[in-house]
Amino acid sequence: MAKKQGFVKEITSRDDDFAKWYTDVCLKAELCDYSSVKGMMVVRPTGTAIWENIRDVIDKKIKATGHENVLMPMLIPESLLLKEAEHVEGFAPEVAWVTHGGNNELQERLAIRPTSEVVFAEHFKKIIHSHRDLPVLYNQWVSVVRWEKNTRPFLRTTEFFWQEGHTCHSTAEEAQAETKLMLETYVDVCENFLAIPVVSGVKSESEKFAGADKTFTNETLMYDGKALQINTSHDFGNNFGKAFDINFTNKEGKEEAVYTTSWGFTTRAIGGMIMVHSDDRGLVIPPRIAPTQVMIIPIAQHKEGVLDKAYDLKELLGKNMSVKVDASDKQPGWKFSEAEMKGYPVRIEIGPRDIEEGKVVVVRRDTLEKITMELNDELAANIENLLETIQQDMFDRAKERQDAKTRTATTKEEFYELIEEGGFVLAPWSGDPEVEAKIKEDTGATSRCWSLEHQNDDLTGVKDLWNGEDAKYMMHWAKAY
Amino acid sequence: MAKKQGFVKEITSRDDDFAKWYTDVCLKAELCDYSSVKGMMVVRPTGTAIWENIRDVIDKKIKATGHENVLMPMLIPESLLLKEAEHVEGFAPEVAWVTHGGNNELQERLAIRPTSEVVFAEHFKKIIHSHRDLPVLYNQWVSVVRWEKNTRPFLRTTEFFWQEGHTCHSTAEEAQAETKLMLETYVDVCENFLAIPVVSGVKSESEKFAGADKTFTNETLMYDGKALQINTSHDFGNNFGKAFDINFTNKEGKEEAVYTTSWGFTTRAIGGMIMVHSDDRGLVIPPRIAPTQVMIIPIAQHKEGVLDKAYDLKELLGKNMSVKVDASDKQPGWKFSEAEMKGYPVRIEIGPRDIEEGKVVVVRRDTLEKITMELNDELAANIENLLETIQQDMFDRAKERQDAKTRTATTKEEFYELIEEGGFVLAPWSGDPEVEAKIKEDTGATSRCWSLEHQNDDLTGVKDLWNGEDAKYMMHWAKAY
Repeated sequence: MAKKQGFVKEITSRDDDFAKWYTDVCLKAELCDYSSVKGMMVVRPTGTAIWENIRDVIDKKIKATGHENVLMPMLIPESLLLKEAEHVEGFAPEVAWVTHGGNNELQERLAIRPTSEVVFAEHFKKIIHSHRDLPVLYNQWVSVVRWEKNTRPFLRTTEFFWQEGHTCHSTAEEAQAETKLMLETYVDVCENFLAIPVVSGVKSESEKFAGADKTFTNETLMYDGKALQINTSHDFGNNFGKAFDINFTNKEGKEEAVYTTSWGFTTRAIGGMIMVHSDDRGLVIPPRIAPTQVMIIPIAQHKEGVLDKAYDLKELLGKNMSVKVDASDKQPGWKFSEAEMKGYPVRIEIGPRDIEEGKVVVVRRDTLEKITMELNDELAANIENLLETIQQDMFDRAKERQDAKTRTATTKEEFYELIEEGGFVLAPWSGDPEVEAKIKEDTGATSRCWSLEHQNDDLTGVKDLWNGEDAKYMMHWAKAY
Repeated sequence: MAKKQGFVKEITSRDDDFAKWYTDVCLKAELCDYSSVKGMMVVRPTGTAIWENIRDVIDKKIKATGHENVLMPMLIPESLLLKEAEHVEGFAPEVAWVTHGGNNELQERLAIRPTSEVVFAEHFKKIIHSHRDLPVLYNQWVSVVRWEKNTRPFLRTTEFFWQEGHTCHSTAEEAQAETKLMLETYVDVCENFLAIPVVSGVKSESEKFAGADKTFTNETLMYDGKALQINTSHDFGNNFGKAFDINFTNKEGKEEAVYTTSWGFTTRAIGGMIMVHSDDRGLVIPPRIAPTQVMIIPIAQHKEGVLDKAYDLKELLGKNMSVKVDASDKQPGWKFSEAEMKGYPVRIEIGPRDIEEGKVVVVRRDTLEKITMELNDELAANIENLLETIQQDMFDRAKERQDAKTRTATTKEEFYELIEEGGFVLAPWSGDPEVEAKIKEDTGATSRCWSLEHQNDDLTGVKDLWNGEDAKYMMHWAKAY
């Protein structure tokens, strides 16, 4: 077992140094690697396969609600990016600029898209004329570039991968409904596929997306108690419609500007998945998103019949699950450690004695529990059930931890204490941006959202803990990634 | 029928002005649109759905042969791009350069990838150490940028979408086998899915990929008789292995440089598909790639039961095909024209009289043939069979045309005559690059490939038509896109 220990030891403990532990998991589980461009990562096969699984889930859901995929140019002329004042103010400082094509200097420099609102807006103007052309429900799967100073694999990278949805509607109500529909779709993906519980709500004015009327967000707590904004859905009202003259003739024959939304789900979610579920042995992947759900590890594989039986088992299980056999010439102990590091939801150990006894040893990655199962016709169904149990248990544990780390502050002093402990702190707020700025300055914490759950709270008589004004929002606050 | 004519008239005839016809089809069938960056296109929903269908076909095939997807950074430091001399010479003139990140000038400028050999090479160097690490079979689905002067939708765009495969092997033979395997995979996709017959072969020294030992290509003829290089597969030997020090310890314990390959399939294939199959009424899409295979058009849809029956039919057929109903309030004649413009392989017309008689009118897009079919339990199977027939017929017609336009020249004069007529001209060649240069200068035609079919030709006594030297290759020549 010496090798096993050695292998596992290579990871920093998550309680000792969470940041180091996180990077260790990303690299040792071979999800990604560094590249020669600072802040840009190589997404390795397992990381890419996880992203493809997430993509397939989202793509199916958004197509089922009438959205269509398109592919927009990656470069944006500076003049186009400058068209919506708030938007450019938000993005200009972090744009990568192309100034030369081949050996020639360009007449106008081009931004690599940091996001594509303006590119979509320009196209929408060309294709939308009448209310009959609406709604337009578009999405694209691409990468974008934002010149970040402090980067971290998946969570914040100079280039990241995402889907960005962009839609146009004939009424403000329809745009609002779309924004919420996509928020709910994201909740579904986070909770039911990534096993990540989220708090859905509205961003404050100072935290919303550049150019949006309203930004909805899904926020979640990492293992270390810091919050992560996992995805967002923006309602632009007719801000972009007006700035870009995207007009349509309404049913009454009058010209109006369209109402637009945008919403994005990024590779950041993979970072969230790691920080919520993984442990000191490495990655833990929720079964519904895992590229390999079951890893079969033969014991004494040189003995007659063992490898054959392992492949028979792969064949048997492979109809409904993604299954692999580790037939490499490493020691079983090493293979177990590697399986734990790589986060396969279930590993099955099968050796000569198991075969003789008609049994296999099944090990859950999430709890490391060992279960002996009969090697019979019901095994496939039993493993399938186990995968579903793991999926649910992973969510439940994360939810329980998040709920335990969500506390309400009733005084300023209590707020500061709780914020330092980590987790979400609920506190009543007047909406005054100066309070937000003060909290950020004092603690580094930010307003995360006004959760949908707390929007019907009766705040009669409740005061802002800082300025004593009437509280309008029961806000989630936290230190965040 | 006035509207129908009007609609169709908007396209230039392909025999009058092929270039204009092509652009008309791309735009009017709503495959793409121009953007504000010269040479970069917006790929609209239908174009994107076609690309996604092609992607799914290729992705499945390459995963089935052991390849894994990854995602590499889109930016490349200039110093890295400069590492392989031939490679940089080939690409430097058409690279888009990023010089600023946010408000700061970068210390080293970064290229938007024109292709990713060097990025993969750098990563391979990090992950490959022993023969046990080989082969590495990677692929990515991304876009790349090449600063082109003369662009045309899909065929040649400043940004284009593709998959680029990059693999490493421990022997030259294995790399050669990989290069050929991918070439054959592309033949399969072109011929059996895009219904495009290809000539597979090897590029001449002057036409091969920058840095490759050998470039394999699939070439095909467009309707106008010009050739298109539709995809390529490159064998690099150990050129990149040496230039980037990608070394491994072989089974004998010695250090060696790896052998690499790369191969790419691009959105250019969509341009090829249009130029091979479409006609003066618009787009024609092969059924296996068509996002919508069957468009149902109700006649007199205001009459009771018609729309219901149309949707029943969609339900019935939709199990095995992608089916839509055009329930818009346009006239049927207009809908027919639109269905033809958009290239749905089959349209079904269903009106009150058809319902009464238990029949539907089925129209093939490729031949415009009208077929009356019984509205019974066998309809779904009959339509499915028809789609397969259309697929095969489209290929057969394209093949027949290509074969008819492939002629052999036995004298220089005949060569020049045939080249001016268009199509492939087969002519014996010594391999002298000066002959290639002269032909290009005289006619604009280039050597397309030394086809696999002609590699066993007995050329004893056969002479190069230009310099009278012994012929080594029976070469395909053509004017090309």
